[in-house]
Amino acid sequence: MANGVVTASIVEQFKQLIGNDFVVADEESLHKYGKDETENLLYLPAVVVKPKTAAEISAILKICNENLLPVTPRGAGTGLTGGALPHLGGVLLSTERFNQILDIDERNLQVTTEPGVITEVLQNAVKEKGLFYPPDPASKGSCFIGGNISENSGGPKAVKYGVVKDYVLNLEVVLASGEIIWTGSNVLKNATGYNLTQLIVGSEGTLGIVTKIVLRLIPHPKFDLLMLAPFNSLEKASEAVSAIFRAGITPSAMELMEIDAITLASKMLDSSAVPLTDGLAAHLIIEVDGNNLDVLMNEMEAISEVLNSYEVGEIYFAEDAEQKNELWKIRRKANEASVMAGYTIEEDAVVPRAELPKLIRGVKEIAANNGFKVVCYGHAGDGNLHIRINHPTIKNSYNNSEMTAALMPLFELIASLGGTISGEHGVGLIQKPFLKTVFSETHLRLMRSIKKTFDPNNILNAGKIFDLESH
Amino acid sequence: MANGVVTASIVEQFKQLIGNDFVVADEESLHKYGKDETENLLYLPAVVVKPKTAAEISAILKICNENLLPVTPRGAGTGLTGGALPHLGGVLLSTERFNQILDIDERNLQVTTEPGVITEVLQNAVKEKGLFYPPDPASKGSCFIGGNISENSGGPKAVKYGVVKDYVLNLEVVLASGEIIWTGSNVLKNATGYNLTQLIVGSEGTLGIVTKIVLRLIPHPKFDLLMLAPFNSLEKASEAVSAIFRAGITPSAMELMEIDAITLASKMLDSSAVPLTDGLAAHLIIEVDGNNLDVLMNEMEAISEVLNSYEVGEIYFAEDAEQKNELWKIRRKANEASVMAGYTIEEDAVVPRAELPKLIRGVKEIAANNGFKVVCYGHAGDGNLHIRINHPTIKNSYNNSEMTAALMPLFELIASLGGTISGEHGVGLIQKPFLKTVFSETHLRLMRSIKKTFDPNNILNAGKIFDLESH
Repeated sequence: MANGVVTASIVEQFKQLIGNDFVVADEESLHKYGKDETENLLYLPAVVVKPKTAAEISAILKICNENLLPVTPRGAGTGLTGGALPHLGGVLLSTERFNQILDIDERNLQVTTEPGVITEVLQNAVKEKGLFYPPDPASKGSCFIGGNISENSGGPKAVKYGVVKDYVLNLEVVLASGEIIWTGSNVLKNATGYNLTQLIVGSEGTLGIVTKIVLRLIPHPKFDLLMLAPFNSLEKASEAVSAIFRAGITPSAMELMEIDAITLASKMLDSSAVPLTDGLAAHLIIEVDGNNLDVLMNEMEAISEVLNSYEVGEIYFAEDAEQKNELWKIRRKANEASVMAGYTIEEDAVVPRAELPKLIRGVKEIAANNGFKVVCYGHAGDGNLHIRINHPTIKNSYNNSEMTAALMPLFELIASLGGTISGEHGVGLIQKPFLKTVFSETHLRLMRSIKKTFDPNNILNAGKIFDLESH
Repeated sequence: MANGVVTASIVEQFKQLIGNDFVVADEESLHKYGKDETENLLYLPAVVVKPKTAAEISAILKICNENLLPVTPRGAGTGLTGGALPHLGGVLLSTERFNQILDIDERNLQVTTEPGVITEVLQNAVKEKGLFYPPDPASKGSCFIGGNISENSGGPKAVKYGVVKDYVLNLEVVLASGEIIWTGSNVLKNATGYNLTQLIVGSEGTLGIVTKIVLRLIPHPKFDLLMLAPFNSLEKASEAVSAIFRAGITPSAMELMEIDAITLASKMLDSSAVPLTDGLAAHLIIEVDGNNLDVLMNEMEAISEVLNSYEVGEIYFAEDAEQKNELWKIRRKANEASVMAGYTIEEDAVVPRAELPKLIRGVKEIAANNGFKVVCYGHAGDGNLHIRINHPTIKNSYNNSEMTAALMPLFELIASLGGTISGEHGVGLIQKPFLKTVFSETHLRLMRSIKKTFDPNNILNAGKIFDLESH
């Protein structure tokens, strides 16, 4: 257990290593780095360090490992499950100065980047070369690519293009011991030893600090088309989702927004892009992309035909880039708008796509039974539903036994549908109480044992994903 | 170290568990299960067990774990690196009776299968429902899907569709302790705990025995087109490969065959499908697939234009299914035909795609320096080259210091190009001497430690990928 204390002498050592400017402990900084986008939780670290190189991180971790200091790695702090919260105090390690795209390899369609690059910046940089890095979480304008690796992020394009893990070829990682490894090779196929790359992806900063990332890229599709399909029934909308895939079409995005979510976001953005008529229950936002406009038009037509069997209203087709941006902005702001309206607690359920209607029915029942409001939106094409909860009195789910008890049946339902706790947000700090709905004791033991292999003193993001000490 | 002896009493226990018919130790069986497709190595097990259920495997492994018996899991025995060879004797565990496809879930585009199903049988079964499982190793007509999971197999389609790991959603695994876990969930996105699924994929039977497999499927593309492009220069052919991708085209297959490989395979099949004229050095086999024939025709045209810049000869377009099959048969038989011609040793190098010309130059040099012949073919689009070696006297690479010394510079070159030892065949038994060209001591330590987590007594496929005892 990492329970050492950050002494003045240790702070001095950090300053010697990386310079005074990059070791901070003033009140304002501690507050800034003490929270992320998770509910309204706040935990102050003892000190914030901002190294610039893997060698600096290595030196810092050696000190922390020796002194059993808790280390919390942090990217942009946009996480939604408290993964970057320094809940044990100790050292907050920010990767914000790892902000360089190191190499765009146009010959091999790869990019090598540092973890502190904003995802959208990376996407735009490779797009300039005609290349495409598809995973784009709603927070793409502010989140770091390193955080995306830690959480195995997804976003709307995952339905066609896969999630972060499907693009990571190789990672440079600093281990708790200070040793630095590359997890794999910069190749498209690899059958050489255990897949440490995929073990690091989604490990939420508990196994090592990622300092370089090699991603594969694909040619950027030339065109995309976007439609907005309104429904008077949330269930019909969710049933339509898997029908589209069964018809042999793979959209590049297939998003569901419940009416309250789209209303809140439209209001926040002061946008009238989405016509909001009486009786509306939900919208599907559906995108197709590719290199041939005629083919895409045909796909849109085929999708419209499928939707007609599910009581769709009048479909709206975005006509130009501006209209598309407007629609996407509304989708991306659903989260922020919901928070502002009091929906402070978020779940990130994922089930097999065709089970979405059952999940939505279950969510509504659980909300009714427990006296809170819910609003749902998310990546319907992946079976990944974000469920925002507005409880009249409880605003934090973490360490709240009433909320844990209320939500347990939700996760039991998810598990019974063959789903799991998180599709793209991670377990972090706040989802730990629900682990046992999806993992056996044996499974947990294996994960704990892997953690010990990488980080014997449990200094790296201890108490995230699971507690090591409870067994 | 698993160094126990299979006693008569243990054999009796196995018979009690799974029935007399499925515990065999006659000479013929021991020989059959004592070899795979790797060079001409033979190691006899003490006994062969053929369980039918995960519960039976669990009971068998408990006995083996207690008695420290080496257990070698085996699928169809088509491996090329000795992964299924019982080099320590002990118990050979065949999965041949796990031969049922359990569920094709058309609603969610998933299939649940047992590991002993032949890959092509699985592909055909899902194709009947309009669904596509792309990874198809050359041995697809005889290999098991379980073996494909163990080796993270690829095949020609990997260049567009990815490899086995990109389709595995969830695995039922029996651990060395006899405990049975599911590694993940049947969902398309998962950010819940460490990715044990991807840790098992490619772990070559060293971490557990896979007993159920859930794969995601995609809609089957309606059309494909195939071309054969001849070159008078192997280097020009390999340079053309990355140029095609740079032009924004992603073929569904992009195979390279050196002239000797295609000649040997044509001769073996008594086929005249490929016109073999003087001066020819290599062919590219290029396939595109999709749902729109016009688009595919345009892609073929665009590819032809790119090839023209690389001194391509007269391109041959396959006109019907029969001609396509003929070409693919030649490609798939390259391996067998090379073996028959004395090319007994095979390497499975993978480098970043654009480094292929450098790799090929290096291979030729090393062969010339060491007095052996080589023939190259493989998945050029992935940078994955199969290198077949015909040495005048040495026919096995394993435990042969002269061959190890001759090949070391090849792997050093591969490593220096950013590549690695194996793209799809695994490390198995025979590639262990080259591990240090790509893995640091720290990396090896992590892998060994993970192995100990899953299999503390090192009973499962001990001495495959790496030796546990040497450190």
